Amino acid sequence: MKIQKAVITAASPGQHTLPLQRLVDRRGVERTALELVLSEVSEAGIEEICVVIQPGDEKAYQQAAGAHAGRVCFVEQPAALGYGDALRRSRSFVKDSHFLHLVGDHLYLSQTERCCASQLIETAVQNECSVSAVQATRESMLPYFGTVSASRVHNASHLYKINQVVEKPTPTFAEQELMVAGLRQGTYLCFFGMHILPPEIMAILDRLLESTDDPKSITLSSALNELASAKKYLAFEVQGKRYNIGIQYGVLVAQLAIALTGQDRDRVLTDLVELLATTPQGCSHD
Amino acid sequence: MKIQKAVITAASPGQHTLPLQRLVDRRGVERTALELVLSEVSEAGIEEICVVIQPGDEKAYQQAAGAHAGRVCFVEQPAALGYGDALRRSRSFVKDSHFLHLVGDHLYLSQTERCCASQLIETAVQNECSVSAVQATRESMLPYFGTVSASRVHNASHLYKINQVVEKPTPTFAEQELMVAGLRQGTYLCFFGMHILPPEIMAILDRLLESTDDPKSITLSSALNELASAKKYLAFEVQGKRYNIGIQYGVLVAQLAIALTGQDRDRVLTDLVELLATTPQGCSHD
Repeated sequence: MKIQKAVITAASPGQHTLPLQRLVDRRGVERTALELVLSEVSEAGIEEICVVIQPGDEKAYQQAAGAHAGRVCFVEQPAALGYGDALRRSRSFVKDSHFLHLVGDHLYLSQTERCCASQLIETAVQNECSVSAVQATRESMLPYFGTVSASRVHNASHLYKINQVVEKPTPTFAEQELMVAGLRQGTYLCFFGMHILPPEIMAILDRLLESTDDPKSITLSSALNELASAKKYLAFEVQGKRYNIGIQYGVLVAQLAIALTGQDRDRVLTDLVELLATTPQGCSHD
Repeated sequence: MKIQKAVITAASPGQHTLPLQRLVDRRGVERTALELVLSEVSEAGIEEICVVIQPGDEKAYQQAAGAHAGRVCFVEQPAALGYGDALRRSRSFVKDSHFLHLVGDHLYLSQTERCCASQLIETAVQNECSVSAVQATRESMLPYFGTVSASRVHNASHLYKINQVVEKPTPTFAEQELMVAGLRQGTYLCFFGMHILPPEIMAILDRLLESTDDPKSITLSSALNELASAKKYLAFEVQGKRYNIGIQYGVLVAQLAIALTGQDRDRVLTDLVELLATTPQGCSHD
């Protein structure tokens, strides 16, 4: 198995401006969120990248891609029919190979020398199967993520066999069905926003979408739940963190995490301490 | 004197995407930087607003104006000829009245019940003259701001008579010419990015721009320095802080300042502490 293509989904009406948001990277350079995601993909050695966008966004995205613009092709999702439909729009780009998939509203920070996408690709290649990156995530964050039930793979650290995939489960359901042995109490294996998927995922999405009157209900999790019962499919705990910039204060937290692990850590800490000292709680007028 | 109009400049090629940047306001609502500036102006009772933009930006700005879109007219600066030229593009909007001017790359946080623009307008009306808002600013920040030399007005707190205006002075020049009695050592009165200007500023800008081969060298400070020698012109230390989002980490610092003075202060502080605990200095991979 060789992973040479990546698909990024960024067509959701509520989230399509997120990749255009500007942040300062670990080296102190201002870049768009899209550039940061494209860098992650490029660093993993992938040169062919497809971004699924909302109609009309291509020009803004092309500009936001910066130095990566030449490596990116854009596919429009004609109507806002949800995540599952968005992903299958990349079918003619993906063709018959396994591919890396990332969501356009997450940023990734590795805790090792190798970027998160590289770690994931290596795991998929070694195990010759589809792999979803996951992160142990607190129960309070379940409303934001796909979540898996899984069992540890013997003699392999951070690796799980996926039994079931559920999109944004309730805490009650999670407690009954999605507990994973060995994880800290109250945490679950939630998606990291990064997957190695097989080309067959497109046929699964087609089937699910044809069998429903509500295409928006078909998420990637729906298709991955089918995949789990059909083929070898693993979950891998990446040595890194994902930052969902689509949630409230998501950009702030991501920017802080980048800055606090980057070359300007000391300066940003100084700014922080000064702000904490000079912004008393009661001075709001909004 | 009645202030009924506001002009916001946002045409600089390097900064024209800043007002489109999204932030979370003190109430926890996501809004563009442009919306935050327009709210500041509206809160001060001003209904007629002109934004000077780069050609081609009107649609994006119209969207970014949100609920304020109906109150805003746009004027294009045909070529990137600098700040002075940008401001005079609003002449036919301003006509013959004093007006509030704000720069599009600053955000403002009041430390009292009344917003910064309201404080400034009140000062201008009471003194019946042009007033620039200023903030005591550390020497290290001089490269980013227009700076004034000034003398305190007797029996008035936070009010100064402006003698001279210099754009981005060197520390040496500032130490020799721009020290203001009573300010803390090493700090200067730098512009806050908010002014009450007379209609005559347009004629001054015209004259300066006609007399030079380098229009970009004509900043607002050039014109205000002329104004200082011709008419009564004051500086007012606003009870608030300005955040220049055009500098490195400017958006981060502004967002933190907003969050730490807003309703989500405790939650953001919790996120901060968690980030500090989980992002050791050495985990960078790029």
